[in-house]
Amino acid sequence: MTDFFKGIPAITYQGPDSDNDFAFRHYNPDEVVMGKTLKDHLRFAAAYWHSFAWPGGDPFGGQTFDRPWFGDSMDAARMKADAAFEMFQILGVPYFCFHDADVRPEGNSFAQNTRNLEEIVDYFAAKMEATGVKLLWGTANLFSHRRFMAGAATNPDPDVFAFSAATIKTCMDATMKLGGENYVLWGGREGYETLLNTDMGRERAQAGRMLQMVVDYKHKMGFKGAILIEPKPQEPTKHQYDYDVATVYGFLKEFGLEGEVKMNIEQGHAILAGHSFEHELAMARELGIFGSIDMNRNDYQSGWDTDQFPNNVPEMALAYYEVLRAGGFTTGGTNFDAKLRRQSLDAEDLILAHVGGMDACAAGLKAAAAMLADGKLESARDARYAGWDTEAGRALLASDLDAITAKVMAQAINPAPRSGRQERLENLVNRYL
Amino acid sequence: MTDFFKGIPAITYQGPDSDNDFAFRHYNPDEVVMGKTLKDHLRFAAAYWHSFAWPGGDPFGGQTFDRPWFGDSMDAARMKADAAFEMFQILGVPYFCFHDADVRPEGNSFAQNTRNLEEIVDYFAAKMEATGVKLLWGTANLFSHRRFMAGAATNPDPDVFAFSAATIKTCMDATMKLGGENYVLWGGREGYETLLNTDMGRERAQAGRMLQMVVDYKHKMGFKGAILIEPKPQEPTKHQYDYDVATVYGFLKEFGLEGEVKMNIEQGHAILAGHSFEHELAMARELGIFGSIDMNRNDYQSGWDTDQFPNNVPEMALAYYEVLRAGGFTTGGTNFDAKLRRQSLDAEDLILAHVGGMDACAAGLKAAAAMLADGKLESARDARYAGWDTEAGRALLASDLDAITAKVMAQAINPAPRSGRQERLENLVNRYL
Amino acid sequence: MTDFFKGIPAITYQGPDSDNDFAFRHYNPDEVVMGKTLKDHLRFAAAYWHSFAWPGGDPFGGQTFDRPWFGDSMDAARMKADAAFEMFQILGVPYFCFHDADVRPEGNSFAQNTRNLEEIVDYFAAKMEATGVKLLWGTANLFSHRRFMAGAATNPDPDVFAFSAATIKTCMDATMKLGGENYVLWGGREGYETLLNTDMGRERAQAGRMLQMVVDYKHKMGFKGAILIEPKPQEPTKHQYDYDVATVYGFLKEFGLEGEVKMNIEQGHAILAGHSFEHELAMARELGIFGSIDMNRNDYQSGWDTDQFPNNVPEMALAYYEVLRAGGFTTGGTNFDAKLRRQSLDAEDLILAHVGGMDACAAGLKAAAAMLADGKLESARDARYAGWDTEAGRALLASDLDAITAKVMAQAINPAPRSGRQERLENLVNRYL
Amino acid sequence: MTDFFKGIPAITYQGPDSDNDFAFRHYNPDEVVMGKTLKDHLRFAAAYWHSFAWPGGDPFGGQTFDRPWFGDSMDAARMKADAAFEMFQILGVPYFCFHDADVRPEGNSFAQNTRNLEEIVDYFAAKMEATGVKLLWGTANLFSHRRFMAGAATNPDPDVFAFSAATIKTCMDATMKLGGENYVLWGGREGYETLLNTDMGRERAQAGRMLQMVVDYKHKMGFKGAILIEPKPQEPTKHQYDYDVATVYGFLKEFGLEGEVKMNIEQGHAILAGHSFEHELAMARELGIFGSIDMNRNDYQSGWDTDQFPNNVPEMALAYYEVLRAGGFTTGGTNFDAKLRRQSLDAEDLILAHVGGMDACAAGLKAAAAMLADGKLESARDARYAGWDTEAGRALLASDLDAITAKVMAQAINPAPRSGRQERLENLVNRYL
Repeated sequence: MTDFFKGIPAITYQGPDSDNDFAFRHYNPDEVVMGKTLKDHLRFAAAYWHSFAWPGGDPFGGQTFDRPWFGDSMDAARMKADAAFEMFQILGVPYFCFHDADVRPEGNSFAQNTRNLEEIVDYFAAKMEATGVKLLWGTANLFSHRRFMAGAATNPDPDVFAFSAATIKTCMDATMKLGGENYVLWGGREGYETLLNTDMGRERAQAGRMLQMVVDYKHKMGFKGAILIEPKPQEPTKHQYDYDVATVYGFLKEFGLEGEVKMNIEQGHAILAGHSFEHELAMARELGIFGSIDMNRNDYQSGWDTDQFPNNVPEMALAYYEVLRAGGFTTGGTNFDAKLRRQSLDAEDLILAHVGGMDACAAGLKAAAAMLADGKLESARDARYAGWDTEAGRALLASDLDAITAKVMAQAINPAPRSGRQERLENLVNRYL
Repeated sequence: MTDFFKGIPAITYQGPDSDNDFAFRHYNPDEVVMGKTLKDHLRFAAAYWHSFAWPGGDPFGGQTFDRPWFGDSMDAARMKADAAFEMFQILGVPYFCFHDADVRPEGNSFAQNTRNLEEIVDYFAAKMEATGVKLLWGTANLFSHRRFMAGAATNPDPDVFAFSAATIKTCMDATMKLGGENYVLWGGREGYETLLNTDMGRERAQAGRMLQMVVDYKHKMGFKGAILIEPKPQEPTKHQYDYDVATVYGFLKEFGLEGEVKMNIEQGHAILAGHSFEHELAMARELGIFGSIDMNRNDYQSGWDTDQFPNNVPEMALAYYEVLRAGGFTTGGTNFDAKLRRQSLDAEDLILAHVGGMDACAAGLKAAAAMLADGKLESARDARYAGWDTEAGRALLASDLDAITAKVMAQAINPAPRSGRQERLENLVNRYL
Repeated sequence: MTDFFKGIPAITYQGPDSDNDFAFRHYNPDEVVMGKTLKDHLRFAAAYWHSFAWPGGDPFGGQTFDRPWFGDSMDAARMKADAAFEMFQILGVPYFCFHDADVRPEGNSFAQNTRNLEEIVDYFAAKMEATGVKLLWGTANLFSHRRFMAGAATNPDPDVFAFSAATIKTCMDATMKLGGENYVLWGGREGYETLLNTDMGRERAQAGRMLQMVVDYKHKMGFKGAILIEPKPQEPTKHQYDYDVATVYGFLKEFGLEGEVKMNIEQGHAILAGHSFEHELAMARELGIFGSIDMNRNDYQSGWDTDQFPNNVPEMALAYYEVLRAGGFTTGGTNFDAKLRRQSLDAEDLILAHVGGMDACAAGLKAAAAMLADGKLESARDARYAGWDTEAGRALLASDLDAITAKVMAQAINPAPRSGRQERLENLVNRYL
Repeated sequence: MTDFFKGIPAITYQGPDSDNDFAFRHYNPDEVVMGKTLKDHLRFAAAYWHSFAWPGGDPFGGQTFDRPWFGDSMDAARMKADAAFEMFQILGVPYFCFHDADVRPEGNSFAQNTRNLEEIVDYFAAKMEATGVKLLWGTANLFSHRRFMAGAATNPDPDVFAFSAATIKTCMDATMKLGGENYVLWGGREGYETLLNTDMGRERAQAGRMLQMVVDYKHKMGFKGAILIEPKPQEPTKHQYDYDVATVYGFLKEFGLEGEVKMNIEQGHAILAGHSFEHELAMARELGIFGSIDMNRNDYQSGWDTDQFPNNVPEMALAYYEVLRAGGFTTGGTNFDAKLRRQSLDAEDLILAHVGGMDACAAGLKAAAAMLADGKLESARDARYAGWDTEAGRALLASDLDAITAKVMAQAINPAPRSGRQERLENLVNRYL
């Protein structure tokens, strides 16, 4: 046991009436809902980056956190891993996620980066074996180092493409070795600052080619997990190519990869793109590319990515409702891409943030399951479209403009609108919360 | 000559030093730029809706305009047409555009709507013959009448789909008859107010099927113009399926229509979607679906569609630069989907708005042409990506992760970043203005 | 009983487990919380405008609602009043609110407007007597008619100022006569569309002078209620002078009226101004100008005023927490400035929207009261600032830069930051919901 | 001469037709406009922070710039000063501005910070003497160090208030010693992250008291310059107390300081607050608190502070028009709070950014001066309000509701709206560009 979390107990479920800060009030991992335990529904993963690698800086101020593992050595990396796995056990999360840059010191070369990563992967493997914590997904950080400032796959310099490709390979190798269930790509620098210096056609083609290489390598190495893209509209760049789910779908179709790649969807990114989280989830489901989620909350009054822990249960319920309608997670899960406020300095803050976030997710999922089980929402939806399930409805879709026009004219079709009953349905949702 | 525009002269080009409000200072229709007249480059079209059909209302107030042609009769429709064609001639615009609902009174049935439209189409034909003004595009208004409140193609009620399909047919017929060069679809109600009552999968499928019918009918009737979709992210609905260019591209690919349909892009819609206008233009060009533009300006501080006349020449220059890089307009043109402020009550305001907007476009296009002719921007762009034009660059794209990794390791590739020179390029743009 | 609401029962409290759409699950009017009934805490008022006067239009479509009382006659106005008071009774709201233009037909002159208003006021008086429903506030609609398009008090034309002043007088008279507890001013056109034609100095002075006249008249007539300003940043205008609470405070101080005027704060307007609702409430409380609320919800993804019924209980709880910290309502209350979706055509939709909104408010208020009673939030807040309650803290505030600098130097003051514990407090809030 | 700018010539005016990147095309310092040289109109100041202290990081990536003066020693600070003054001379800017943290290494204590600052102030004094470059303003950085994470004046910990007060004193002393013409306060951490842990009343009172101390010390020390507050709505905090000009005005009135403090207004901050830049300038002018500007440009599609160099001349023209209407600068000037893009690595980029920004300002100011000299805009504005300049207009403002109502009734006042002519005025503005 490290000193960092000293005095913090393992978090257990104590029921909704508990007033213990260090307890779950809604997340009972073994509770069975719709035939599956909450643990298996939610598939929680803790993320390395914000929780262990972020120093607390923002554009107007530097480090606020004081972590014993901050530093650039392999010793520091191992101390960080010790703390991380300790937190995973305190929380009882079954999974974790990481970027290469979160877990190993930055070396002076690709070779050294690779050695550092391999060494820490071995260290992880032992800890995973000892604790039973599994890897939801791994990924490569191709956005923080200055070499990536103008893009990774989309860089004007082929050498950066090469460096990026090689780095992805090492991260896919690490993910495979650790039994990861998915591999994620977030293109934080795959976009532009100004159109004036950007060849959008080339850059999209480079991105498409890189994605094909990733898919090819997945099959070559026999990786069984999913390849996931995480859409975000902007920040750090002015415009990112993976803007939102619908944009990425078009990109996948352009390069013929829609059967190979799924979406890792983040609430905060949805908000920045002008969508609700549930919109992005529903869109991915309808397009057949739903994969996993990065669960967090964006401040509605801030124009940047705040990555806060989720705490609004009604919003969680709507999100998990779309997840359940998609059949729930298969390889995906609920990763927290969520960070403390930079004033939240203490180890307790880090634990409590996860406790609150996990509890909000569990409460949301249970409400969503109750909505789905009750069936009132779905039967209202079905009733609204019932006309399309008739023979006449099907025939209409198979018809053409001439024939339809003749029919409208002959039958003097002049449809009367019917209420959409939005307020009734919104009230109904509140009944399950 | 109607009384409405009495005293307003035909607008002529009088050069940049003119202080005549009723003159062009930049738009000399016959001026040749890059081998084409400004008239042929810009292909200006005046729109019926805001200029002749909008009464000046907003969500907090009713009609402010007092036009002699307001009313629901065919007489009023003809008086409106007289005024509209008079304005087209005053301005010297070669084209106009219209929705069915702009030009004919709303009837009690589809049949009556059709008769009304056919009658006004004949009236237009005579005026077009007399004046030489041509039709850039026609379209159906499937959003204002209450029957469309829950969508046209995407309505839960098949009868509304049928009514919409028949209405589109009549508008395509009208467009064909009048020699229109394009047919446009704007799905103002093709979206949702709440996911709770929406079957997004069905609705998208309905929209895809309707679009296929439109394409089929185009070929059946032998219409040679382009079918254009106009993306808009929201307003009136909370979310519209034609969110932006990249979203519509994915939709077209899903339904196999990317070779049949192009984009009609509006500045204000780009802004509402979180993009610059030039972004949307560049994206359409790169995806091979650039068609036409609705030129206006959205207020940057207002969160809704303000549809103002464009007046910022540097912004126009960047927009037309992307148009020129796309090869300029073929069937498309510069339609003004632009409305007066509701306090701008006078006939003079209507004329001056167009004069200012056309002049800003012309100044922008001339600057864009100079930029392109000079070549400094394009050679800077090419130089930035020059590494990809080498044999090594091409080989890299054809390689795979294993081979690239071996190469990075063997050559110890560790790329140094190079300046993106954004400020230099921005200064350069200002030199042409 | 009118036909309109036929078959809809009076709404009663049936407890949280009720699955009756037409019942309160949280709003038990007689339940006592912190020594006061919910009815007296919440002081619900139903609004005339959206519920009875709005036809369902938006900028892209016309009327969708089909109400028997739509029309411009006094008969229609009385039928509307019958329906409105019937809804007030169905819901059991103790109050209502109105603009003059909601309740009387628009006349051809100020004199006729006044006669129409006086006539309907008498009609209201009898209904209020019969039902026990009271008037929370009255107000003048100085934004819908085209005469106000360029402002009411801030109009460039003194005649519009005069017409507005006279209209306000008649509305204050009506409010007084009906025993209204407040009089409200919302300056929907008091702002500008472009600075180019605006004399901001004059306009602000005109607005200040008008407000002084209102205050003077209040005292002259012996009105005991509060004068309330409702801030909104924009829409319909590009910029409104009553932007937000802090802006209005500065305006009141400029004209020496901060002791005479309080705030009527709306959730949707707070959102449009870039604030959370609770921010505006807290700001008004701290500035001593908290008055009343217009309760609604703005869609977080829409850039305009959606005025929806509130339904997110965690958000309501935070809002009412600030209301309770302000000492609760005195003359103010919870008015619903909230409208149906334009697809919600039915009488049932109108009732259910209010039922859901009232229930969300009640649930929120009860959670807020529990938070306040429990005291954990307030003791955490007090503890955070405890250093300022020491003698040294007070002395510091009374000191000066020289003395403080000497002290910092002498004592080598170098403060260590302490955690702000945001996540812990957010979790705590969720415990009361 | 340092090596950093080696090969870059002093920038001179070469006229609009120059195609030299390193030349002014519009900024001829000695050109006389409206009786004053451009140099005296614009009063350009270069800022230390972004140009010399910012390493090129953003929330998703670290340092990109490689400056020889980066480091924490006094030697590095002097090397930075050498480069800075060299740039001031290359550009020919008459002024510069700085925060303490920009110019001296961070020490381990207040005492060491003070010694470091004093030492560099002496170094500056010699350079200013040698070059003739003057100090427009100084300020204290009370936001970057972790001790300020929860506020400076508004901190819950009195020790932070004390440390901040002492730091301000040393910065005011430095500014006085260097002959600075203003002293600026930007409250980057004076706000909150969550209302849950914030005592807004206390924090505002602390801020008011600190501002009083600053004013008192100014008078005590005999500083003749202006005290300026720089409003910003948010970022880094969720909400900052100095939200915008109107908010700060209310704050000044609350604490009786409206005669002592003026505004330093930044374009990017205006945009984040939902205003145009010219709005904030006009508001400050009307409230009598206009002081100085931080000139930059915010990306309209990014929700955070991008601080780019201005380049849109039409926007500059509208901004300087408001400055000229305020009588121009007295103690204030045009400071560039503007930063390179993080990909703009080279010394040339830094110079060209300033060259382009200064040129855009000069072109804008010349257009603004021409507009004002021509008088068409102002006479249109005056004409619009002419009714208020009559005796009847003045009498109306001095009247009361009763008398006005009687007059409206007696005279049957029923005003007809007149066109606001926005498009005509917008066209007019374009004529001067």
